Amino acid sequence: MQRQASMGSPLHRVSLGDPWSRHMHPDIASERCTPSFNVERLTNILDGGIEKTALRRHVENIISGDPEFSLKNIYFLSQNEHFEAAIRKKVHLQKLAWKLGWPEDGEEFKYAYRAVSGELALNIHTIFKKSIRSLGSEEQIAKWTPLCERFQITATYAQTELGHGTYLQGLETEATYDAATQEFVLHSPTITATKWWPGDLGRAATHALVQAQLICSGVRQGMHAFIVPIRSLQDHSPLPGVTVGDIGPKMDFEQTDNGFLQLDHVRVPRENMLSRFAQVLPDGTYIKLGTAQSNYLSMVVARVELIGGEINFLLKKACVIATRYSVIRRQSRLRPSDPEAKILDYQTQQQKLFVPLAWAYAFHFLANELLDFLNSSHDDILNRDFSLLPELHALSAGMKAMGSDFCAQGTEICRRACGGHGYSKLSGLPSLVTKVTGSCTYEGENTVLYLQVARFLVKSYQQVQGAPGSTLHSALARSVAYLAEPGLARCPAQKAADFLQPELYTKAWAHVATRLIKSSMHRLQTLMQSGADWQEAWNQTTVVHVQAAKAHCFYVTVRTFTGALENLEQEPEIWRALKCLCDLHALHGILTHSGDFLHDGFLSGAQIEEVRTAYLDLLLLIRKDAILLTDAFDFTDHCLNSALGCYDGNVYERLFHWAQKSPTNTQGNPAYEKYLRPLLQSWSSKL
Amino acid sequence: MQRQASMGSPLHRVSLGDPWSRHMHPDIASERCTPSFNVERLTNILDGGIEKTALRRHVENIISGDPEFSLKNIYFLSQNEHFEAAIRKKVHLQKLAWKLGWPEDGEEFKYAYRAVSGELALNIHTIFKKSIRSLGSEEQIAKWTPLCERFQITATYAQTELGHGTYLQGLETEATYDAATQEFVLHSPTITATKWWPGDLGRAATHALVQAQLICSGVRQGMHAFIVPIRSLQDHSPLPGVTVGDIGPKMDFEQTDNGFLQLDHVRVPRENMLSRFAQVLPDGTYIKLGTAQSNYLSMVVARVELIGGEINFLLKKACVIATRYSVIRRQSRLRPSDPEAKILDYQTQQQKLFVPLAWAYAFHFLANELLDFLNSSHDDILNRDFSLLPELHALSAGMKAMGSDFCAQGTEICRRACGGHGYSKLSGLPSLVTKVTGSCTYEGENTVLYLQVARFLVKSYQQVQGAPGSTLHSALARSVAYLAEPGLARCPAQKAADFLQPELYTKAWAHVATRLIKSSMHRLQTLMQSGADWQEAWNQTTVVHVQAAKAHCFYVTVRTFTGALENLEQEPEIWRALKCLCDLHALHGILTHSGDFLHDGFLSGAQIEEVRTAYLDLLLLIRKDAILLTDAFDFTDHCLNSALGCYDGNVYERLFHWAQKSPTNTQGNPAYEKYLRPLLQSWSSKL
Repeated sequence: MQRQASMGSPLHRVSLGDPWSRHMHPDIASERCTPSFNVERLTNILDGGIEKTALRRHVENIISGDPEFSLKNIYFLSQNEHFEAAIRKKVHLQKLAWKLGWPEDGEEFKYAYRAVSGELALNIHTIFKKSIRSLGSEEQIAKWTPLCERFQITATYAQTELGHGTYLQGLETEATYDAATQEFVLHSPTITATKWWPGDLGRAATHALVQAQLICSGVRQGMHAFIVPIRSLQDHSPLPGVTVGDIGPKMDFEQTDNGFLQLDHVRVPRENMLSRFAQVLPDGTYIKLGTAQSNYLSMVVARVELIGGEINFLLKKACVIATRYSVIRRQSRLRPSDPEAKILDYQTQQQKLFVPLAWAYAFHFLANELLDFLNSSHDDILNRDFSLLPELHALSAGMKAMGSDFCAQGTEICRRACGGHGYSKLSGLPSLVTKVTGSCTYEGENTVLYLQVARFLVKSYQQVQGAPGSTLHSALARSVAYLAEPGLARCPAQKAADFLQPELYTKAWAHVATRLIKSSMHRLQTLMQSGADWQEAWNQTTVVHVQAAKAHCFYVTVRTFTGALENLEQEPEIWRALKCLCDLHALHGILTHSGDFLHDGFLSGAQIEEVRTAYLDLLLLIRKDAILLTDAFDFTDHCLNSALGCYDGNVYERLFHWAQKSPTNTQGNPAYEKYLRPLLQSWSSKL
Repeated sequence: MQRQASMGSPLHRVSLGDPWSRHMHPDIASERCTPSFNVERLTNILDGGIEKTALRRHVENIISGDPEFSLKNIYFLSQNEHFEAAIRKKVHLQKLAWKLGWPEDGEEFKYAYRAVSGELALNIHTIFKKSIRSLGSEEQIAKWTPLCERFQITATYAQTELGHGTYLQGLETEATYDAATQEFVLHSPTITATKWWPGDLGRAATHALVQAQLICSGVRQGMHAFIVPIRSLQDHSPLPGVTVGDIGPKMDFEQTDNGFLQLDHVRVPRENMLSRFAQVLPDGTYIKLGTAQSNYLSMVVARVELIGGEINFLLKKACVIATRYSVIRRQSRLRPSDPEAKILDYQTQQQKLFVPLAWAYAFHFLANELLDFLNSSHDDILNRDFSLLPELHALSAGMKAMGSDFCAQGTEICRRACGGHGYSKLSGLPSLVTKVTGSCTYEGENTVLYLQVARFLVKSYQQVQGAPGSTLHSALARSVAYLAEPGLARCPAQKAADFLQPELYTKAWAHVATRLIKSSMHRLQTLMQSGADWQEAWNQTTVVHVQAAKAHCFYVTVRTFTGALENLEQEPEIWRALKCLCDLHALHGILTHSGDFLHDGFLSGAQIEEVRTAYLDLLLLIRKDAILLTDAFDFTDHCLNSALGCYDGNVYERLFHWAQKSPTNTQGNPAYEKYLRPLLQSWSSKL
């Protein structure tokens, strides 16, 4: 306990060891001097228990104490240097883990990933291993897992193609079974069939899990996964028939070697097709052991882990950096006689920063709930009980879409809220933005995901319609149970304070989600009644279906956040602080979508003004806790790697000092020597 | 005419000269085969006349024919290489301009800037020159202009400080007049007084126009501009008392050397204070010749030029790239029996791309109108007639804020609409996004600008309130004249088609802007009546004032777009095509802010559904013209520099080919040699 307490002190957080860390800027010290709740306790809650906080800090201390993991100069690196640094860190970490006996898939790796700010290569290697576990037979798991874990091979997961992404049926890569040799022939028949984007493929992987159309005895059996060796284990050169390389510069993720892969009639043995859900017998007979959906399981897992383990981390960091900077930065005067005010004292700045902060907490609790749901249903699915898969699929798709949308938006709001300095890479904010915006596309493009949610909603709604009042409702998935619940036609709230009741605003969101689902169904049916077929009608209503899906997702975040608060009633101070954020999230959503609430008179214009009053008052309440609520995320300075966001608040000194080390200042000025000097001096030579 | 016609052919646009340019992809050719309007004619209109199109293409042909201006490999460069390339291009361009006799400030330079995609250094050098013209005396203009134009000096405009941005009164740099020597002593008293961000300062400038607090005889006279030599004209070393360098890595703008500057009691002669609006006599007497606002003129000019000349270009390019890609990319099937569909045939993709396209046209016409307004009032202001300055200031502030907000949003929508490939720098889209997002902050932070608009609206509204029905209304600025016009309490539209009347939706926007201004005034007054002072009440209502300012700005864009359409009635085909975009812009705005229209019952829920029907129908109408409407911007492939956006549609070949040239493929694989090989082979050596 003693050790944990001391590690909760500022000493844990301030780990840069530069001269400024020794004194706290008074403008940030004053924010912490009379906390309204126990920050350390909130950190424990977020971590999932005091022991986890201790373990996390233990790992973080190892990382920040080891110069091999230094993130200094990361903003100065070229793409090649960046990748090399990430490979170096990954290999060093792996050796360290072996030495320390960290368990495979243990929390330690997760904490280490966080502590090095994700600056590691070979992350898809892990996806490969997990995919084998999801899609492989017991023999395949037994064979390939140790090869992965010992890094005797490095592997990637190759699904996306140059001309094909989300629509898996459209993938062109072929795997044709040759019964004569008991081999599959993997082949890219066109340029658009080139595998494109897989991480770890460009320069690292020796093996690829290739998703390809299986062809048995001339019959196409759909997409299956094949293990394909692509580079020599001796010298890393591409194997015969393999064309492989890196796809070049990207917005971010320079630590990852996203690559391309063309296969020219490459043969792999029959055992290399993953066969938990389908098998090809030696004679070419195809046997199906699961549903078409079973292939999607590894995507579901990846999406769920993405929300809490990656996307929301980026938003949380942005919140920490921007909030800390906003109590140091002073600008303009609230009154002519006052000194310049902290920018966090301006209402517009509060609105900018506290809404994303509320989202960060909302998605934190949401990610936990989703992970619990996944863990409780994962084994059933592996055992071929798919009853929960549709809801799990819809929830993970919707929450990945909404999470990445909102986190991307929130991170960019935080970045812009730091003014010009938010544009400097040294603030740490640009890389958070360019990373998180990628997550709107990878692991499923968001619009496609929202439409998958919409289809689930359509089906659920039809279920409700089919048997009103009957016992069939018990079969409704939990996340859409509200569709069958009777609601009010008008919101009963009368004054601003009424809108601070979680049950009230949760029901308001359920009402709006239900109405939008009904309304998009109505548009769909109207089109079909006027002669359109289902496909045409669906395409001409996708915009409204996406709108309905978004409202449903919003409802889920509100319900989850209020549910998480109920578990905190033993912690009244923390409950009070977090309830403000939950209220803010729900009410901000109502104001942003006020049209959806006014549309059928559920809320009146006067009620919207009461919501607005409640919302603006919340900003002032959150203001006093803002630094504490971001401190509670407990990021070390090392991991934030931001000149603006350090715990001690010494923003300007660090920004000035870090800039001096930039290659733009240390590598001479050849542009002057070669081009400017001759230009500037051409006239004086003529005079 | 003959020459222009041939230059209007695809040959002008396809200038990359790679093997794929020779054949047009059939999926894009089919989009152009039966145009509903004359694309060349629309290009002429956008350019401002057939002669301007010809001159622009003439300049573009020079640029794309000169290997010095090649943009190949630009996505592979380090920050230092990028800057060097931009200096090289700039010097080459300047010499070419001298040789060809291009007029200073002529259209040729503007077209050349466009043709090299802004990849030039020394852009603030031009701002310096313009500032001298705005703020300098005739003698100062006569002295410094030729030095700039001949590049005997290179200069920057140094205003922003490490700790101070938008709030100009807070700038700390001091200029203290020393009557004994008739010099100003320029000094940075603190670290936060360090000039930070000025372009061209980091490695290029020999001189800086420094904004500093003037102190005469111990009295602070506010901000004034001083010309300060900072680097030796002999060897470019910093002059005594000057600390100068580059601020390091940024999200973008690597072609620009944003820098820092600290001044330690640096002396400049009395003549170096720009003195059009204020003078210091030899004895230290301070004489004011203009209003406090006069200092803001150069910012107004910069903002107006920014909208059309920079920000909206970025959005237009993004629209071109994403729309072209969307007719090549096929994904999923609209019907099971169909081939995979062009993604532009999906409603969700249409909504994503056509709304930004409508914005691009809206801001095009808006920028033209603003520029006309500026040109007609600029001379008056230089002659110290400031009567139009408040409106010009509010309009330029509001439109810069809205333009950069919307263009940033639109560019990112286009980028994401290209899926994974939009994340590759080779698509050209990431750099458009990271550039345009910077414009939300530079030249005035957007929230601050919206609040300046809000203050103008408050004053204008008070003007209307003060004397209802009286002749005072004639003094109302034109852009807020709607505040005094009687409106309807309910919108009379009944069916979807009614919402396609420009007068109807313009009035709807005027209604909502008026109501929001009234409503924010009401909140302000209520707070003051309950005891808050003005400053407190203002800060507690800034969120609603920003909302009102945004509605006003939206109204201005709708009114300007409809006004521009009226001038096109002689061009019925073009008018028809652009009217769809104008309608889409206005109706999309109504749907996005439907709560503001439903709030007081101006529109009903049923009417909103009619708006939605009209809006969704517009998407289908625009679909058939989409490629033509983006072709009309007439960007060359050279200037787009996008593997996804070329005129010929050969997307995948180019993407594959360009990636091969990336340094990630051409510079070996040291990460493997150093770290991966030993790891992979450590087990085999143990076996």
